[in-house]
Amino acid sequence: MTLCFEDFPPGRFGSYGPRHVTREEMLAFAAEFDPQPMHLDEAAASRSMLKGLSGSGWHLCSIMMRMMFDGYIGRTASLGSPGVNELKWLAPLRPGDDLTLDVDVVEARVSRSRPSTGIVTFKGIVRNAAGEALCEMTSPIIVKRREAAAG
Amino acid sequence: MTLCFEDFPPGRFGSYGPRHVTREEMLAFAAEFDPQPMHLDEAAASRSMLKGLSGSGWHLCSIMMRMMFDGYIGRTASLGSPGVNELKWLAPLRPGDDLTLDVDVVEARVSRSRPSTGIVTFKGIVRNAAGEALCEMTSPIIVKRREAAAG
Repeated sequence: MTLCFEDFPPGRFGSYGPRHVTREEMLAFAAEFDPQPMHLDEAAASRSMLKGLSGSGWHLCSIMMRMMFDGYIGRTASLGSPGVNELKWLAPLRPGDDLTLDVDVVEARVSRSRPSTGIVTFKGIVRNAAGEALCEMTSPIIVKRREAAAG
Repeated sequence: MTLCFEDFPPGRFGSYGPRHVTREEMLAFAAEFDPQPMHLDEAAASRSMLKGLSGSGWHLCSIMMRMMFDGYIGRTASLGSPGVNELKWLAPLRPGDDLTLDVDVVEARVSRSRPSTGIVTFKGIVRNAAGEALCEMTSPIIVKRREAAAG
């Protein structure tokens, strides 16, 4: 069943994963989009502030997007997102990490400009297997209200 | 020459691109990280709010990262970024777009906790060939001060 605005009351929404991240996919993403030495070069990375090879923050965001898609966005009447309110990279993504994602609905309100939709603001936290938070993101999506989705 | 904190006074920093984006790379990124119908399926996309196939916002961010890397981050004594202050997706990325990036330094200050570094906050705006803003991002990076970089 398709999830609509009414299915996102404020509070804990769900937990997803684990999603295993390989060294190979980390290096492939970095080579294409973010070829800084800390993301590509083991020796340079060991001398960096993050003390070892770390994934690009944009790779982490992209993996979080896929975990959200697999978890609920793929079956949500979502019209898209206007952006991100806040994004924090808190600790490095490492080769071999098993990521989990906790999602809360922090706000849900009917759109004033488009009353057949609502704006659902999520807070997602990605953690590694040790429970350390790697990334925290607060972002709204636009979701159809049930009546509009059915019509 | 490596760019240090002192090389980033507030004001216009630079303009980069054009970077051509193909339909094939848009579909490949969406298939891996953001397989929503609006990013993958031409027919579904034409019925979506964005009225046609659009790239994932995370793909746009990743391309912006690469444009920043090629433009200046690749030769900057950067230690990484703690996150993003604000990110707005303003208009859809389309197949065949030629993107340009304008970058301003909005703030530059010496770090209190780590005085050998400074925090440089950039605002980047990605535009298509028509000059329409697709994405706007404000984000800090941590950059070595010249004395520390030389040491």
